[in-house]
Amino acid sequence: MDIATLSGILAGFVVAFGAVFLGPAPGQFAYLPSLIFVLGGTCAAVLLTCSAGDVWQAVRVGIRSFTAKRIPARDVVTTMMHLAEISYTEGILALEKIQTTNPVLKRVAQLIAENADPDLIRGTLTIEILALRRRHNIGMSVFARLAMYAPAIGMLGTLVWLVQMPGVLKNPDAFGPSLVTALMTTLYGCLFSLLVFLPVAGRLKNRVMQEEYRLNIVFEGACRILENNNPKLVYEKLSSFLAPEERVSAR
Amino acid sequence: MDIATLSGILAGFVVAFGAVFLGPAPGQFAYLPSLIFVLGGTCAAVLLTCSAGDVWQAVRVGIRSFTAKRIPARDVVTTMMHLAEISYTEGILALEKIQTTNPVLKRVAQLIAENADPDLIRGTLTIEILALRRRHNIGMSVFARLAMYAPAIGMLGTLVWLVQMPGVLKNPDAFGPSLVTALMTTLYGCLFSLLVFLPVAGRLKNRVMQEEYRLNIVFEGACRILENNNPKLVYEKLSSFLAPEERVSAR
Amino acid sequence: MDIATLSGILAGFVVAFGAVFLGPAPGQFAYLPSLIFVLGGTCAAVLLTCSAGDVWQAVRVGIRSFTAKRIPARDVVTTMMHLAEISYTEGILALEKIQTTNPVLKRVAQLIAENADPDLIRGTLTIEILALRRRHNIGMSVFARLAMYAPAIGMLGTLVWLVQMPGVLKNPDAFGPSLVTALMTTLYGCLFSLLVFLPVAGRLKNRVMQEEYRLNIVFEGACRILENNNPKLVYEKLSSFLAPEERVSAR
Amino acid sequence: MDIATLSGILAGFVVAFGAVFLGPAPGQFAYLPSLIFVLGGTCAAVLLTCSAGDVWQAVRVGIRSFTAKRIPARDVVTTMMHLAEISYTEGILALEKIQTTNPVLKRVAQLIAENADPDLIRGTLTIEILALRRRHNIGMSVFARLAMYAPAIGMLGTLVWLVQMPGVLKNPDAFGPSLVTALMTTLYGCLFSLLVFLPVAGRLKNRVMQEEYRLNIVFEGACRILENNNPKLVYEKLSSFLAPEERVSAR
Amino acid sequence: MDIATLSGILAGFVVAFGAVFLGPAPGQFAYLPSLIFVLGGTCAAVLLTCSAGDVWQAVRVGIRSFTAKRIPARDVVTTMMHLAEISYTEGILALEKIQTTNPVLKRVAQLIAENADPDLIRGTLTIEILALRRRHNIGMSVFARLAMYAPAIGMLGTLVWLVQMPGVLKNPDAFGPSLVTALMTTLYGCLFSLLVFLPVAGRLKNRVMQEEYRLNIVFEGACRILENNNPKLVYEKLSSFLAPEERVSAR
Repeated sequence: MDIATLSGILAGFVVAFGAVFLGPAPGQFAYLPSLIFVLGGTCAAVLLTCSAGDVWQAVRVGIRSFTAKRIPARDVVTTMMHLAEISYTEGILALEKIQTTNPVLKRVAQLIAENADPDLIRGTLTIEILALRRRHNIGMSVFARLAMYAPAIGMLGTLVWLVQMPGVLKNPDAFGPSLVTALMTTLYGCLFSLLVFLPVAGRLKNRVMQEEYRLNIVFEGACRILENNNPKLVYEKLSSFLAPEERVSAR
Repeated sequence: MDIATLSGILAGFVVAFGAVFLGPAPGQFAYLPSLIFVLGGTCAAVLLTCSAGDVWQAVRVGIRSFTAKRIPARDVVTTMMHLAEISYTEGILALEKIQTTNPVLKRVAQLIAENADPDLIRGTLTIEILALRRRHNIGMSVFARLAMYAPAIGMLGTLVWLVQMPGVLKNPDAFGPSLVTALMTTLYGCLFSLLVFLPVAGRLKNRVMQEEYRLNIVFEGACRILENNNPKLVYEKLSSFLAPEERVSAR
Repeated sequence: MDIATLSGILAGFVVAFGAVFLGPAPGQFAYLPSLIFVLGGTCAAVLLTCSAGDVWQAVRVGIRSFTAKRIPARDVVTTMMHLAEISYTEGILALEKIQTTNPVLKRVAQLIAENADPDLIRGTLTIEILALRRRHNIGMSVFARLAMYAPAIGMLGTLVWLVQMPGVLKNPDAFGPSLVTALMTTLYGCLFSLLVFLPVAGRLKNRVMQEEYRLNIVFEGACRILENNNPKLVYEKLSSFLAPEERVSAR
Repeated sequence: MDIATLSGILAGFVVAFGAVFLGPAPGQFAYLPSLIFVLGGTCAAVLLTCSAGDVWQAVRVGIRSFTAKRIPARDVVTTMMHLAEISYTEGILALEKIQTTNPVLKRVAQLIAENADPDLIRGTLTIEILALRRRHNIGMSVFARLAMYAPAIGMLGTLVWLVQMPGVLKNPDAFGPSLVTALMTTLYGCLFSLLVFLPVAGRLKNRVMQEEYRLNIVFEGACRILENNNPKLVYEKLSSFLAPEERVSAR
Repeated sequence: MDIATLSGILAGFVVAFGAVFLGPAPGQFAYLPSLIFVLGGTCAAVLLTCSAGDVWQAVRVGIRSFTAKRIPARDVVTTMMHLAEISYTEGILALEKIQTTNPVLKRVAQLIAENADPDLIRGTLTIEILALRRRHNIGMSVFARLAMYAPAIGMLGTLVWLVQMPGVLKNPDAFGPSLVTALMTTLYGCLFSLLVFLPVAGRLKNRVMQEEYRLNIVFEGACRILENNNPKLVYEKLSSFLAPEERVSAR
């Protein structure tokens, strides 16, 4: 979990607790029926939309997006340069014995060692990207739907509470708290959408974009190693993927 | 009907009934004219937009999206591996006699047995995907329009009821219930949109994405069987379609 | 005009008239200045956006979308099978004398009779689709703009009426009706948008999708007739365009 | 300026002036601070987004979209037929001396006269379309941003005025006018957005679509003249760009 | 920083300060807890969505978008014409020694000097565009999220303050200021979104479009220099990228 996430959680808690406990009436914010209505209704809508497998997959992918380490583009270029140097000094066949935990990189190294056609490498990587995008899209769409349903269910709850108010109108003292209770569902719905569901959906979208970018670097690097077995020329091509200020340092 | 749908329906009912019957005034929620206005207006708008055939098709496709069993990607890979093994042990011609209820798979098996051109297989599958996407898009667009019209017609109804209120303003006791009645159409419109129309539209969208993914696996598997008649290499390609944790177990 | 449109109009009228005339104050709904404001303002905004020719074209295309008969995909397949059988029994040149009111089909039959290149047929059909999409897009965009402007102009009208209310605030009896009058423009704007402009825009969008699908069938059928002059094989390809349950019956 | 624009301006003025001067309080609508706030804030937001050159370009393109004459597709087909007849009767080289004020047509005529490759003609026209789309997109995006900022700045202004109201709450007579003043910024923002900025953005969008369609006709016509120097066949192809009812008359 | 930005900042300040200090209650606008809530909540949501590196990158790119000088398309055409003249008078090899601070132009000049394949130049520029678009997209998406979260967090804050009001309802004098305080978070959120975050996101979007357009000119120019080493013909092609009124002057 990186420093941004930690400070984001911290900032969120400080702001939320400050607004609640420094205000004149912190007790108003804990109203269980509203919370059950919003979370229950949102879950119901999402479970009617997606299958159990998709929701489970989304939860797993969502949690992993917080714990997994980000691999910067620079590191992928360094790894591909490492492959290029091995294939230059020890010959292209040496790539078959490369040790790596990344299954895609492992397969690409094997394909280079087999002197495979660039089209075959592109085909394999295209399917990998397609499968990865689909897995992340499932997670992303579940969280995007949660983010869309939560405030809408919250407003629906406010309508439900408002409709019950005329029965309360007879005693004027109950009017104020009753109106507040009606607003609580909207508040909970917006809170969950803004500070939980939208950020996770955004994280998953960023992730798939980074992953595609990385696979792009791997593909171009593999083609260059096959074309001309020269680390210098491989770096010249791959450095285009980096920001200008990273280009010198990555070498 | 899978477990997610069942628990979704259950959660929706529990939340809705809880909010209505545990509230101070459950009687307020049953107001037939509002219900007729919202459903009638929404149906009118959709019938003016789509033809009777499209609406009928949408209802059929929508119901089938709840009853049909989902076929996971893993099963499609297994089926294609089965085809690959038959063609490897009994020769490519044995595929012609394959028994399957899936008409697309049946046709692809025949095309492989006839040693057809990959372009012909791709052309046939492309048309199948096009036709399937169009059928599901019709259903999806009908439900997306229902989901869009329902809350808008609900708010229109609230405006209609509000406009009639000055005639009621003379007796103050009728004011509260009258305002509630005006809000009922918005409430019904949002309720139907959030818990019926949007989930069904989302299901249909998920379905067409899964179906396209499956047809993709079928196409790549067929090409590989035609190219090199070796189950091991076919699996190596098709396993890219699975999540990393499914890859070993599928073999 | 098909049955869905008729029942849509009927349902719309029943709901609207029911809500107005069964309510306590039907007289409130007829307020001419609000109607003039909404329709005048919406027309002004659309005429400033589009040229007179585009608006005229949109009205014509919009009316035709209600009167023209829908041609199902099944009929296009039947027509193409008819062409395939003629070219099989009487030779490809017999297609030149085909009698049809559809100008695109007429031209395609001629191109087949001239044994034209598939690329030429595709080029001709691509331009036909481009021109058709542009004509319908003009109509669609005019109605989409009407649907967007109408409620916005309605809310603008409500603001205009609200701004004039302080002058009315002095006599409290005029307050209620005055507020209702202010809401009338929003009501009219939403009504026109939901029950007139959005449905017509949706119809035109559906139409262009169907037309493109039909031209696709014509193109694939023409290519197949040119490739191998065998009705059986032509049907095998074209049947992919139909829903599974239509496939047997169409033959 | 065509008749639609004129009647649009007329309708807008009639509706606006009618609503203001036939109402009970026309004096309420002239409130200079609100006008300055809305226009100033909108300009500030747009100037922070776009460069001075872009804004200037947008104003110029926006004004030209009202004054420039529309060239219908039929006229472009007629012009290309004219070129085809000259190249048929006087030879392809005669096109070099064509007199026309349209620089793109001039260049295409020269390229035909030089018997250039269709790819070169397509390349040149592609860049022309790209450059034209970019110029118009700058104008369109400036007006689209104005249309988006204006109502938002208007609502911001209403919030600003509302925040200052408690200081006014002490004297109840000032309450009504003060509320109206707060609404004025929203009213101005919506008015400018709906009747000025959105229509101009829509005009520019229509324009670039028409221009691309015209360049498409020019390109197909040029290719056909190069391919087979026969006006009849050129017309057969180009007539596909016209609506069915225009096809006969254009010849 | 160009003149538009300066006048935009000026106009924003004049309008904001005018509305605040000329109003009856300028003191109402400085309420620190609301400001902390909006900025803290917005930052928390963005930090939960993006990594620390992305936010840092966005801030840097955002600031640079105000300080960096815009290079008009005309200057890029002039530069490419300069290259074309050098390669015409001194031979294609002279391009290797070109002095330029633009790393992309430098690399393209080298590739021309090496008489590289147009495909290689296109490949290199495609990766440069991809990498540039990704870097700017990160910045753009951070500011687009800030612009989306800020008003939403503002409305959430208004809900939080409203919920605490019943505790204040007992003393009527605190009611007015309390309502104003509740609105302050919405006001701050909209203000930051409209006058800070949306403009910066718009600037970054404009920038990446301009940069892509410039790289397009560089690519077409390089291809033309390689194809036929004649400045006149290079200019004829590149002039299509300019507006008609710039074409003569640029020569």
